[in-house]
Amino acid sequence: MTLALARDEQRDDDTRREEARRLRAKIRSGEHHGLTTGLAPGMVQLNLAIFPKAWADDFQRFCELNPKPCPLVSMTLPGDPVFPSDIGEGLDVRTDAPRYLVFRDGKLANEVTDLTDLWQDDFVAFGMGCSYSFEEALVEGGLSLRHIEQGTKVPLYVSNIETEPAGPFRGPTILSMRPFLPEDAIRAIEVTARYPRVHGTPLHFGNPAMVGIEDISNPYSGSPPVIHQNEVPVFWACGVTPQIIVEHAKPPICITHKPGHMLITDRLNTELAG
Amino acid sequence: MTLALARDEQRDDDTRREEARRLRAKIRSGEHHGLTTGLAPGMVQLNLAIFPKAWADDFQRFCELNPKPCPLVSMTLPGDPVFPSDIGEGLDVRTDAPRYLVFRDGKLANEVTDLTDLWQDDFVAFGMGCSYSFEEALVEGGLSLRHIEQGTKVPLYVSNIETEPAGPFRGPTILSMRPFLPEDAIRAIEVTARYPRVHGTPLHFGNPAMVGIEDISNPYSGSPPVIHQNEVPVFWACGVTPQIIVEHAKPPICITHKPGHMLITDRLNTELAG
Repeated sequence: MTLALARDEQRDDDTRREEARRLRAKIRSGEHHGLTTGLAPGMVQLNLAIFPKAWADDFQRFCELNPKPCPLVSMTLPGDPVFPSDIGEGLDVRTDAPRYLVFRDGKLANEVTDLTDLWQDDFVAFGMGCSYSFEEALVEGGLSLRHIEQGTKVPLYVSNIETEPAGPFRGPTILSMRPFLPEDAIRAIEVTARYPRVHGTPLHFGNPAMVGIEDISNPYSGSPPVIHQNEVPVFWACGVTPQIIVEHAKPPICITHKPGHMLITDRLNTELAG
Repeated sequence: MTLALARDEQRDDDTRREEARRLRAKIRSGEHHGLTTGLAPGMVQLNLAIFPKAWADDFQRFCELNPKPCPLVSMTLPGDPVFPSDIGEGLDVRTDAPRYLVFRDGKLANEVTDLTDLWQDDFVAFGMGCSYSFEEALVEGGLSLRHIEQGTKVPLYVSNIETEPAGPFRGPTILSMRPFLPEDAIRAIEVTARYPRVHGTPLHFGNPAMVGIEDISNPYSGSPPVIHQNEVPVFWACGVTPQIIVEHAKPPICITHKPGHMLITDRLNTELAG
């Protein structure tokens, strides 16, 4: 790379970081409560889960044991609502995601846009990699994603792949599915292998029944898939898994982002590669 | 890694290099004319092709256009029988492979164990990565290879995937096939992605008919495969491809190693990764 090109790339990266910070400021001020899908291109968006300290050690262990569905990128100190600065400047978990879901005893209790009133001084927040990062890498790698092409939601399935349990946290792995021709599936595996902190390589391809999916046309969530001739379904571990796990574990309180309403960081997706 | 561990690894690497040099000395002296399969573990073995200078530029271009079947690792200067020292100490292409095949006008003419009398002062030798390197990485990655398990030869197939032509060099890509369960196929793709200089990732998996293979039980060369329930056939570009290409291009003379009788280098397989 020439010096001039390197300078241009640096400028692009700085612009992206600046845009991410501006979007986060709008979310914090209440100006943006919508989806973050497609916003802040190039930047890492995180799945969020918040637990009281008494539950947090087991959840941290659960993430370490299950890096594909729960790729831990950063976590806060107990009671501290601000993430370590390596993922963002003053990133405050109480205000910086557009929408949150509050689960009480494992059941969805309500949806809020700010956690200031709910915050407890024993809360620990976990930020986990999200598939937006690897989908961006797939598209940049020349691959076409059916659900983006068709403007639908990626289909999710409950698999028979059990997570490794940690304390009260246990349950099935949720999978997201994207169909590809075999040669594109190979390329997709190659690309996602570079992103172990955003779900990494797929857990399965080809035969849904082998991972406990009886009817691929009937997803647990998202849109029924369109699979063309000669394409194979490719299944990745999904960041929705912790929400199912919480339903099983029934902590007195747990707060997550609302799906699609993610925490925007100051980190570039390319910085998560490797 | 501790300093002591790093020192142990360095010692192991030095031992492996020393063993490779000893084996090459035995091949050179005529003491070993047999297969190199399984010998000099950890070391890069190369596929070999030698052409007169008038054909060599096109063949070099052919390798550059077709890195999966012909991953060029090193080549000699015209007339110089010794490879550049980065792949081995005084590695002499005339004496250092155990057996050679001589093709005249694209037809196999004879088999020899030494090229000293055949050497021409316009010869250029090409050393290309061979699947032994990535098979070793697959086994170290915890994968089991059926043909090694069963003591048979890896099955090869003529595909309908055309190579990118360069001058007179053109023709189909030869594929080698290894069966895996889908989750192991994903792991195999991940491992071989790290070895672009030894065929890299597969070209296809799943449906042999899609790459022009009508009967998978009837390989072009090697043993008929044993594929268990739920396994998928995974196909990699194969270093035998140049031999088919030479049959099409019909150069007045071309010399290759005899399959399985490879050129042993002083480079570690791990040095080819990345």
